Amino acid sequence: MADRPSKGLADIVAASTALSDIDGRAGRLFYRGYDIHQLATAATFEEIAYLLQRGAAPDGEQLQAFRAEIAAGRSLGKLVHSSLAEVAGSQEPMEAIRSLVSLASADDPDKDSNAPDANLRKAARLTAQQPLLVAAYHAARQGRAMHPADPGLSLAANFLLQMRGTPPATREAEIFDSCLVLHADHTMNASTFAARVCAATLSDMHSAVVAALGTLKGPLHGGANEQVMRTLTTIREAAAGDPVAGVEAEVTARLRRGEKIMGFGHRVYKTEDPRATHLREMSGELAGLSGEDTYYRMSRRMEEVVLAEKGLYPNVDFFAATVYHYLGIPADLFTPVFSVSRMAGWTAHVIEQHADNRLIRPDSEYIGESGLTWVPLAAR
Amino acid sequence: MADRPSKGLADIVAASTALSDIDGRAGRLFYRGYDIHQLATAATFEEIAYLLQRGAAPDGEQLQAFRAEIAAGRSLGKLVHSSLAEVAGSQEPMEAIRSLVSLASADDPDKDSNAPDANLRKAARLTAQQPLLVAAYHAARQGRAMHPADPGLSLAANFLLQMRGTPPATREAEIFDSCLVLHADHTMNASTFAARVCAATLSDMHSAVVAALGTLKGPLHGGANEQVMRTLTTIREAAAGDPVAGVEAEVTARLRRGEKIMGFGHRVYKTEDPRATHLREMSGELAGLSGEDTYYRMSRRMEEVVLAEKGLYPNVDFFAATVYHYLGIPADLFTPVFSVSRMAGWTAHVIEQHADNRLIRPDSEYIGESGLTWVPLAAR
Repeated sequence: MADRPSKGLADIVAASTALSDIDGRAGRLFYRGYDIHQLATAATFEEIAYLLQRGAAPDGEQLQAFRAEIAAGRSLGKLVHSSLAEVAGSQEPMEAIRSLVSLASADDPDKDSNAPDANLRKAARLTAQQPLLVAAYHAARQGRAMHPADPGLSLAANFLLQMRGTPPATREAEIFDSCLVLHADHTMNASTFAARVCAATLSDMHSAVVAALGTLKGPLHGGANEQVMRTLTTIREAAAGDPVAGVEAEVTARLRRGEKIMGFGHRVYKTEDPRATHLREMSGELAGLSGEDTYYRMSRRMEEVVLAEKGLYPNVDFFAATVYHYLGIPADLFTPVFSVSRMAGWTAHVIEQHADNRLIRPDSEYIGESGLTWVPLAAR
Repeated sequence: MADRPSKGLADIVAASTALSDIDGRAGRLFYRGYDIHQLATAATFEEIAYLLQRGAAPDGEQLQAFRAEIAAGRSLGKLVHSSLAEVAGSQEPMEAIRSLVSLASADDPDKDSNAPDANLRKAARLTAQQPLLVAAYHAARQGRAMHPADPGLSLAANFLLQMRGTPPATREAEIFDSCLVLHADHTMNASTFAARVCAATLSDMHSAVVAALGTLKGPLHGGANEQVMRTLTTIREAAAGDPVAGVEAEVTARLRRGEKIMGFGHRVYKTEDPRATHLREMSGELAGLSGEDTYYRMSRRMEEVVLAEKGLYPNVDFFAATVYHYLGIPADLFTPVFSVSRMAGWTAHVIEQHADNRLIRPDSEYIGESGLTWVPLAAR
């Protein structure tokens, strides 16, 4: 029936999108035609969410209205509120976030509609709600009340405030805001593709982003930044002397054993991931501000060793690990924090899928037995 | 980068599978090499779940052990138990089932492992748990205690017992068991594909089936059986005289307005869906047993009209609607009941994906603007 198998669908075009584009050979990434290098420092996350979800950069009035929508959407809803403590007490971060977003649909007034205006409102609400869910989960598992949001602050600053319980420095909030910009969309990655497969049955936006969250949970997609941090911590704790010197020995030993070093290489980029360039700089700046740059120096050494030994470049996850660490984010929240940003892209992809839908239903190649005869149990 | 776009991935082979195979032109369906026509009446759902998940038909001892595993897995778990009433009070059936399965991972002892033995145990537990979740949801929203399970009964009979609160007749349970057999797997349908995209990041089985549930929720995939029932109910209520005579007028009018008649046609089958053949017979038998065959006679008339007018055959959803109706299942639980059966296939696909994994990450075609320059907000 089909003409060629393509395990993993590599190089198969599964959808058309006007949201983002990658030039893997040149190491370039674009959101709606804007180079990520322009956006990384000049645009805020709220502007990028608007750009992705609504199609163009907002003017001042549009941005003000969108920020008001985000502020109004910063609410847990009744069902999430009543379930939070028990979920936080019995589910791990990504498992819990998957559950909480699924529960959250109960209190969304537009949950039954896929109409364009309803989808825009839901996208804004889900974008507003995601940092709140992660912060609320963290506060609940620590058994403390969550810090109230400050309506004058950005989404990025409010997340750091509510998650940590203490206000971030201005520069910290700016850097975290840039992180959110860098992670907001990335063409047909596995979680985004899962969201589109789900949305293409004309299922609703909450179902689609729940599918995306479950997909992001897998270590081949979302867990790499956390693994990078664990590798750095392990090496530092094991180092007798200078941990930077310990990096080369450990990385070389791992590579000799055939192990993968997390945070390097990418199926699409054949050169440095353009997001890594910015995250490296942010990591260095935050290390300087913190007065404790060991992890940053270890990371720099690690990228030298991996490039020399394997010819691989750091990907988006590598320097995100130390950036998040310096921002006071616990390692097991790194993937949930990725979802705070990617929610902008996932929701935009659902909007795009619903606007010009076709069911996504591929073929499969049958490789099992055939022509068998069922023998009733008594005769087996 | 990619050589041709394929919207909807029609005819693109996305995975290899030994689970099921379809011959769309001949109208044939096979599970692991056995023709569905053999399995429909000769095999039980427990045997089919075992066949799909474990690779071969069980012998007597293996089946006994598997049935014991199913009985042991028939438990809601602590987090689901404590959340059930509030979820049932504020989420619609598929929304609630999606949330409850996401919550259920909390109490699965194997939740952190994708190892083959852990996956087999989780598959059995999820298969056992799914009918219980649907029945518990229905009892909770009706504000009654759920009927306890009877360890001597089949999964199918226990579902009818616990969902309705009264024991099914032997023949009812047998027919429902056949329904579960018929719906257990169907190659790379959208929900199964979503489960595999999720599992291919090495995410866990619960995340994958939650993605599948959200995908099944969409009306282009899971809602058709419920829509069929609503169409029949609407025509019957509107009919001045004989509702069977009302069918032709209404169906013809809808087709003239360019509307789709739910329950007919299929992307894969070009002739009658082999499952429809069995469901038609079951619907007729249950109608006879009930002493009230109006909906069955209306359905027979509808298939004649649609075949004559559009050349389309009934699909799996068409006669499933009246079968479920005669079994006392409320229309808004038809899609959850589909998930009770398909859970066997979804979990088997996750096992198969994890056993020979590659990340599923397709390409996309960029169709947006390019070369734009980001203008800072102040200048916009």
